[in-house]
Amino acid sequence: MKIVLIGAGRLATCLGAALLRAGHEVVQVYSRTRGSAEALAVRLGCEWTAVTDEVTADADLYVLAVKDEALPALIPQVTGGREQALFVHTAGSMPLSVFEGCGARRYGVFYPMQTFSKERETDFRNIPVFIEAACRADEETLHALAASLSDTVYVLSSEARKYLHLSAVFACNFVNHCYARAADVLAAHSIPFEVMLPLIDETAAKVHVMSPRQAQTGPAVRYDRNVLARHLQLLQGDREAAEEYELLSRGIHNLSQAGAECQESAVNLKKR
Amino acid sequence: MKIVLIGAGRLATCLGAALLRAGHEVVQVYSRTRGSAEALAVRLGCEWTAVTDEVTADADLYVLAVKDEALPALIPQVTGGREQALFVHTAGSMPLSVFEGCGARRYGVFYPMQTFSKERETDFRNIPVFIEAACRADEETLHALAASLSDTVYVLSSEARKYLHLSAVFACNFVNHCYARAADVLAAHSIPFEVMLPLIDETAAKVHVMSPRQAQTGPAVRYDRNVLARHLQLLQGDREAAEEYELLSRGIHNLSQAGAECQESAVNLKKR
Repeated sequence: MKIVLIGAGRLATCLGAALLRAGHEVVQVYSRTRGSAEALAVRLGCEWTAVTDEVTADADLYVLAVKDEALPALIPQVTGGREQALFVHTAGSMPLSVFEGCGARRYGVFYPMQTFSKERETDFRNIPVFIEAACRADEETLHALAASLSDTVYVLSSEARKYLHLSAVFACNFVNHCYARAADVLAAHSIPFEVMLPLIDETAAKVHVMSPRQAQTGPAVRYDRNVLARHLQLLQGDREAAEEYELLSRGIHNLSQAGAECQESAVNLKKR
Repeated sequence: MKIVLIGAGRLATCLGAALLRAGHEVVQVYSRTRGSAEALAVRLGCEWTAVTDEVTADADLYVLAVKDEALPALIPQVTGGREQALFVHTAGSMPLSVFEGCGARRYGVFYPMQTFSKERETDFRNIPVFIEAACRADEETLHALAASLSDTVYVLSSEARKYLHLSAVFACNFVNHCYARAADVLAAHSIPFEVMLPLIDETAAKVHVMSPRQAQTGPAVRYDRNVLARHLQLLQGDREAAEEYELLSRGIHNLSQAGAECQESAVNLKKR
């Protein structure tokens, strides 16, 4: 299967390396940024272009690994004149239907759910890939391709994927933001961030074996007003961090109360 | 050194096991909850009591591993008649001075920074321990004790520890809360939480090798209004989660802008 990568960002870079490693043939890289297209093409040992008209017409699969908001405009430019091929995008937040009306009949979604950084190699085998296709035969093709790169492949509808993507924002971006707040507080008091790593690792490890609600600890669960007030005092120079502290503490407490209510109604159900 | 554990909760349980493993002598467990005191004493093979008057007077070290807010009332009860011994508490958020005026002259803090659950064994060697003492000799004693249990021991003042504890709330409790929100969204759409674990692990692993700000990805960094609006739409049934989504997204964007500003002023500084 001849593959063209449309996009040369972090995801395209990681995916390209994984495709090569799995023995697939990446024939060309397109990016509107010439430098990015060339850099990735050199890494993959293939052709490159920064002009959509020069994207080769005889590939089997075109992978659009670009920013979500770039997709609607880019799709017709890439599919035009290549209607026999299979097109996929890699955006968790975009539906399959973004391809509708573009002329191509074979299209799908290939969403590797991970946080990619150019500076860091990610083992693609550990990345869950969520696929979807307009027809069954292409779903099979994408499943085989995904399985050649990753150990965990799921077929998931656009509707469910929206919620998956939303969850990923909470479990990755918002989590990382909390790390950033911790790093800021530590830096302001000359404490190295690395002291926090064992706690960060254990917090992640715990939710492998228990639910996040069960795993919760700290002053907010029991809504310890003394500790909360002292912490807010320490944050008084940073209004935004203080607002986050208040809202998240209230959220933790409310979820723990809601959890207790759930258990109670479950017990009620048993009694009947 | 004969040690008495005051408290039989999650931290006391984990600490007791680590003390035993390192060859220390735990002679007694106190908890006002008889069942907890007995359960831990059985695990450690020592005496127990639920009455402060019955706490043995001839131990060398009394470790007060109780809730922060219980300390002020409990300290005089435990130190009374045992003024020759060394007393420590394990509360990250409480200053050394909480012992002042209690009659004892030898006291300190022994704060193992970790999230403890009774259901989960934690390897104490990986837990950073932050110690502080009223006098140098006791600091040495606590340092040696901590080093016999853990690979990383720091001496840290009460003033700095306040901020350390605040950071830990962000890096652990708030992070875990974001996991809980993700779990709720997934559960509502029948997607198993385990699909999120590779992303959670990688998010934690990244901050071992780059700063959280560098590691940030996702729609909020670039403040992608389309994605943010769609996500808020999905959260419309959960006002609290939606508020968190908005506030954290704004926070991520602002921190990334602030980062850019910092870099810029650093560059300006270079120019002069």
